[in-house]
Amino acid sequence: MSKSDRIPRDRDNDHTREMASQRATFISEMTGATLDTVASYTIDPAVTQGNIENFTGTAQVPIGIAGPLTMVGEHARGDFYIPLATTEGTLVASYSRGMRVISECGGARTTVVKHSMQRAPVFLFDSALEAREFGQWLNEHLDSLRGVVKTAVDVPRLTEIEQYLVANMLYTRFCYTTGDAAGQNMPGKATLFACEWIRAHHPQKPRYFLSGNIDTDKKHSAMNLIQTRGKRVVAEFVLKRDVAKELLRVETDWLYKYRQITSVGTMQAGGAYSCAHSANGIAAMFIACGQDAANVSESHDGLTYVELLDNGDFYWSVTLPALICATYGGGTGLPTQRECLEMMDCYGTGKGNKLAEIIAAVVLAGDVSLSSAILTHSWARIADDSDTSPASTTAAMISASLFPLPVP
Amino acid sequence: MSKSDRIPRDRDNDHTREMASQRATFISEMTGATLDTVASYTIDPAVTQGNIENFTGTAQVPIGIAGPLTMVGEHARGDFYIPLATTEGTLVASYSRGMRVISECGGARTTVVKHSMQRAPVFLFDSALEAREFGQWLNEHLDSLRGVVKTAVDVPRLTEIEQYLVANMLYTRFCYTTGDAAGQNMPGKATLFACEWIRAHHPQKPRYFLSGNIDTDKKHSAMNLIQTRGKRVVAEFVLKRDVAKELLRVETDWLYKYRQITSVGTMQAGGAYSCAHSANGIAAMFIACGQDAANVSESHDGLTYVELLDNGDFYWSVTLPALICATYGGGTGLPTQRECLEMMDCYGTGKGNKLAEIIAAVVLAGDVSLSSAILTHSWARIADDSDTSPASTTAAMISASLFPLPVP
Amino acid sequence: MSKSDRIPRDRDNDHTREMASQRATFISEMTGATLDTVASYTIDPAVTQGNIENFTGTAQVPIGIAGPLTMVGEHARGDFYIPLATTEGTLVASYSRGMRVISECGGARTTVVKHSMQRAPVFLFDSALEAREFGQWLNEHLDSLRGVVKTAVDVPRLTEIEQYLVANMLYTRFCYTTGDAAGQNMPGKATLFACEWIRAHHPQKPRYFLSGNIDTDKKHSAMNLIQTRGKRVVAEFVLKRDVAKELLRVETDWLYKYRQITSVGTMQAGGAYSCAHSANGIAAMFIACGQDAANVSESHDGLTYVELLDNGDFYWSVTLPALICATYGGGTGLPTQRECLEMMDCYGTGKGNKLAEIIAAVVLAGDVSLSSAILTHSWARIADDSDTSPASTTAAMISASLFPLPVP
Amino acid sequence: MSKSDRIPRDRDNDHTREMASQRATFISEMTGATLDTVASYTIDPAVTQGNIENFTGTAQVPIGIAGPLTMVGEHARGDFYIPLATTEGTLVASYSRGMRVISECGGARTTVVKHSMQRAPVFLFDSALEAREFGQWLNEHLDSLRGVVKTAVDVPRLTEIEQYLVANMLYTRFCYTTGDAAGQNMPGKATLFACEWIRAHHPQKPRYFLSGNIDTDKKHSAMNLIQTRGKRVVAEFVLKRDVAKELLRVETDWLYKYRQITSVGTMQAGGAYSCAHSANGIAAMFIACGQDAANVSESHDGLTYVELLDNGDFYWSVTLPALICATYGGGTGLPTQRECLEMMDCYGTGKGNKLAEIIAAVVLAGDVSLSSAILTHSWARIADDSDTSPASTTAAMISASLFPLPVP
Repeated sequence: MSKSDRIPRDRDNDHTREMASQRATFISEMTGATLDTVASYTIDPAVTQGNIENFTGTAQVPIGIAGPLTMVGEHARGDFYIPLATTEGTLVASYSRGMRVISECGGARTTVVKHSMQRAPVFLFDSALEAREFGQWLNEHLDSLRGVVKTAVDVPRLTEIEQYLVANMLYTRFCYTTGDAAGQNMPGKATLFACEWIRAHHPQKPRYFLSGNIDTDKKHSAMNLIQTRGKRVVAEFVLKRDVAKELLRVETDWLYKYRQITSVGTMQAGGAYSCAHSANGIAAMFIACGQDAANVSESHDGLTYVELLDNGDFYWSVTLPALICATYGGGTGLPTQRECLEMMDCYGTGKGNKLAEIIAAVVLAGDVSLSSAILTHSWARIADDSDTSPASTTAAMISASLFPLPVP
Repeated sequence: MSKSDRIPRDRDNDHTREMASQRATFISEMTGATLDTVASYTIDPAVTQGNIENFTGTAQVPIGIAGPLTMVGEHARGDFYIPLATTEGTLVASYSRGMRVISECGGARTTVVKHSMQRAPVFLFDSALEAREFGQWLNEHLDSLRGVVKTAVDVPRLTEIEQYLVANMLYTRFCYTTGDAAGQNMPGKATLFACEWIRAHHPQKPRYFLSGNIDTDKKHSAMNLIQTRGKRVVAEFVLKRDVAKELLRVETDWLYKYRQITSVGTMQAGGAYSCAHSANGIAAMFIACGQDAANVSESHDGLTYVELLDNGDFYWSVTLPALICATYGGGTGLPTQRECLEMMDCYGTGKGNKLAEIIAAVVLAGDVSLSSAILTHSWARIADDSDTSPASTTAAMISASLFPLPVP
Repeated sequence: MSKSDRIPRDRDNDHTREMASQRATFISEMTGATLDTVASYTIDPAVTQGNIENFTGTAQVPIGIAGPLTMVGEHARGDFYIPLATTEGTLVASYSRGMRVISECGGARTTVVKHSMQRAPVFLFDSALEAREFGQWLNEHLDSLRGVVKTAVDVPRLTEIEQYLVANMLYTRFCYTTGDAAGQNMPGKATLFACEWIRAHHPQKPRYFLSGNIDTDKKHSAMNLIQTRGKRVVAEFVLKRDVAKELLRVETDWLYKYRQITSVGTMQAGGAYSCAHSANGIAAMFIACGQDAANVSESHDGLTYVELLDNGDFYWSVTLPALICATYGGGTGLPTQRECLEMMDCYGTGKGNKLAEIIAAVVLAGDVSLSSAILTHSWARIADDSDTSPASTTAAMISASLFPLPVP
Repeated sequence: MSKSDRIPRDRDNDHTREMASQRATFISEMTGATLDTVASYTIDPAVTQGNIENFTGTAQVPIGIAGPLTMVGEHARGDFYIPLATTEGTLVASYSRGMRVISECGGARTTVVKHSMQRAPVFLFDSALEAREFGQWLNEHLDSLRGVVKTAVDVPRLTEIEQYLVANMLYTRFCYTTGDAAGQNMPGKATLFACEWIRAHHPQKPRYFLSGNIDTDKKHSAMNLIQTRGKRVVAEFVLKRDVAKELLRVETDWLYKYRQITSVGTMQAGGAYSCAHSANGIAAMFIACGQDAANVSESHDGLTYVELLDNGDFYWSVTLPALICATYGGGTGLPTQRECLEMMDCYGTGKGNKLAEIIAAVVLAGDVSLSSAILTHSWARIADDSDTSPASTTAAMISASLFPLPVP
């Protein structure tokens, strides 16, 4: 890299309009492209310190507001307007439709059932036997390690150390609660302290890597689905048969039948999410609310469970076993992102479970809307082969992207 | 929903500053939160039409520029500056480090090896036998269906129809090439036309759903990893031993050893990506470049393959089997997003493979940097417990947010 | 290994009673254990040539006969008695119960929907680009390769070559139909010939390994579930509500409800089979009928799909995507094994699909019985805590070893 | 079923030669096939009581003896001869070759690192919140439940209750140690007692099913791979470079290179076992030793980890996370099966870990032999196209049935 290739940087004070401007100019000169709109940001570059290097401007991602969504959760109660940052047309409309349906049925009942964040060091030994004995030692020193962690970091608390022995190595998962932060970083620091303490106290001073890749940070995994990463949260509601017919144009027993089929499809494909889509709502909320969009990889995992009740109503739930979200730290404090959290009263400490509940309910709303939209395209036609009404055709056309709204 | 709950909307002309402002005010009134910075956007609301409903403002996501990254790909050649929209501190710095390493070693060789986008209708029959016979019929009418698709949509071309029979149903995957669009939508439309044609021509007029959930749209799946969704792209380079030592502070044989361990960890955890992290770079580029961030769910899948060469150099590759990206359509035309594409000369038709190659190379850069950072924290210490050299400290600092610093 | 440790062997004529006896004596001397019953075999050692080395006797595995099972398959039609070799008490009784239920409901409808056996060579190149171009070359030479295979082996026919490019390697799956043999061996030989032909004709003489481990021989895999290995076969029947009540003591809507729950459980656990159990019946038939019991690993994969019909009857199906079975070759010609095949008229050429259909129907019978047994233990009690009726007790007893009795 | 279809049965005394003979005759009459060799068993039918219903004879599966295999395990120490019941030609020879290699290198070091058997009841509630609170209650009553189990069954001890909440249900896994029995049955009984106790003591008398299908009994699953089912056991040895060359005709660095490639193949295919084959050895030992062959489905799961040492030697290990085996109960007491256990001094109480260790070492031997055989077919040819040396031919011949011979 010659000196002239180097992106301009000011070691002392780099998060300034001036430096951003220098970089934009540099890029223009190097590439011939202009960065005029990127550079037309309205936030103070100083606030991005700690969130980005080589700040040059912002991506302006359109925010649409969906809702209101009625919540009857443990932490989230009342009507909420939901900020969705996306560029996928009809997405806001489709989620809004789902939210209206849930609200008409009394709202989404939501529950955070577990919270656990991991860092997963792997310890190396000469034999499986030594690794097993070290595992025993770890169990015996768990309380000490909890104490060590307490002295090292403020918030994360070490809850347990899972062990997965392979060959002559002990893969572990150090599990933490992390308050209202997403908590991938502090557990890393805490685990490093703990590992160093182990090396200082265990007679073999075992070698280790801070990650054996079973954390599994920013990756979907079977491990996450089973063991929880971040928050495990459930959203439930009972879809009334009449509401389904009126707002979604579907019968609940069609939904139930369709559910059987997508469930088998998911299993066959080895899909990480067993209903229509979770990633759309999660990504849109993550971007709006300053969450780490890379965590869509883990957070979109989910299990849907439904039941057709005797009266024709339809119990519908989604369980997200690896939802990673935060109400402070990371990008949550940036101006536009903070406002989005604040419009749901989800900014700051003590709001983590509330935000998780809302996200789960939003995912549920998205499934309600999209699943039904799929049905109105094809299933309706099963019932009536002569269905060539403009309405149906329009419905198909409208939804070109997701499969969205029937026309009222 | 009472009328007063309803988000203001103008049926005729909704994508205006005035309507956005009305909505911001409405949200303020309903929630008590202000949307001042959300409303301080600098793009013309009119351009967001087709990308969002209920436009109220924008999320301003900080963009840092990383690079330059030298590419010796099939489509991407030369030095590139990479826009990353993220709020995770040190991420831009860490990727930049990886890019510098790759560039010093001659650049990333990249190849798009397959392109296939799917919509996956499922057809219902009375018995497995009927479903099998329908599958035969489909095979015999493949050419006709290709023609039908051609008349229905401009770009997508139907390449093949995969069949996965379960019970009395034929799950299919209609596979398309989609030019330089991401292509989830047009294949949906094309498949609907094709299905209707099937119903018109097959004696049984088979019932179907447009998705049996094996597409698997916006979900990680084994199916995607195996069969490709979007683009399957490979990035490779040979890490020179000297460069590794100088810029990453690691020996290549440490990397090789560590690779063995993370590989087993990934397999045990059932992880969707077998090296350090792909989702970070993908999400950051997706947001900057107007891609659909929900597709991080599929796109982050990947397989790493490495080899320690006889001379101590290190062949390093990443294969992304389900990378979904576009250079026109969707959010690519929005002002800030388009500029980000343009700075890589990746906007518009004929650029899809180029963008895919760049993203794959960026992912490779991220793994190079983070894998090494993990090693300098722990492995160095195996060799030498007193490792407190400034070099190592610097390496560590670069990735501080990912794997924090050892205590002094 | 000292000479005295060596198991006696006669290079010229080793499959004799005398040599078997010498080995039994040797083992006795070396271990102190007697092999009297192992040596009390009643088959001619000469017939085991080609099936085993160091023949010393036989394991006598008890055979129980289950059935009759009414079949209305494509190839298997009529009433069948099923030989099950097992040591798990109540298994024969439980399967018999399921068979009776299926028979009372008109029999099992069965269909082999695909047949494909693989050997999966991986070809090595210097870059992804070369690997991709080789893939193109392979496609262009597919007909030639089909011809090469025809000259090399009698039965297997090369149908297609699937390609899965990773890094600088082309993983392939050479797919064959293999007539009525299980067909792991001949495809291996055929593929070797094909690979050698490729090396002789492709300008780069590409290096390869005969297996890149994606065959995936004698292993469960997502690949097998998706792509078929051996035979993909479906068994279906409609469980009449009255029969369910009378013979299984369950209501069909309980079964449906339970199905929802196990389906979610399977998905969460990442289970290879989505109903109660396939491996029991498969293993017992495999041992009785001279199949390769190691193939239980692949063959037990399966997907269950059910539907509660409007009249309360219950459509129940199982799809086995990777059933590997043979009616000649391997162990099928051994005396007791051949008799077991013959009692179903499944020995010799032209019987492969028939055997596959019967196995699938047996698996279905096992699920019918065990699923119901689980319900009568727990669900009955939901409806009526004082459920101690003889009927329920009998049902429970039948599957005692699988899910033991409630306390009186 | 008409009366004449019914298989003859004597309710009072059914496990007799006379009844077996009546059944054989009946089958002959019904099917036209003879069961002469099936009926030529040499064991006393009375001993099969509790292992089979409708006993009609035996399948005589050929037993070949492999070995000796030197073990330096925790429980298995010394030289062992291994009984393999199989009909796959060359399998005994190939395993013997692997055993010789291991023995020449000092023997297999083996360690049982965990033991846990499960029954997995699922508890049903009206909401996720109730389910979560029940989970809390379960944790608080764990000691009581351990006591309940103790009074119900002799051997199994309840160690922990894992919780996996989905929707409004609490999926659990009751984990047990089961001494030297395989232990699927007693934990079932124990769990039923525990569930009934829960219903009697918890205010809501929660409904439950005894299995929510996450046990996951007789199925491969990600859950088993991660969480252990039965015994988690490791076998390790260091393959000396010279021994590899002399006995296997391979260089250890070829093996290492090949390992990289199969590892990626396994990951791509979603394979349950990451080296060449475990199911062959496991199935052959299971049949010989009276284990439940259906458990091949779970037991064949495994993770291989290898390392090329600086001196060219090769650390090779296999970890079996879900090995289910028993040394008493089930089929272990049948005459031929018991003899097979006794020749390894593995019959009866206190031998469970020993048997598990031997099986793991046998699996390792099988991989050593087959992996090398694959290499000598293809890799040798890379180095030298004229490789027709007798040594290589011999190596190839040994595994002829697995990977057939190159053409001369």
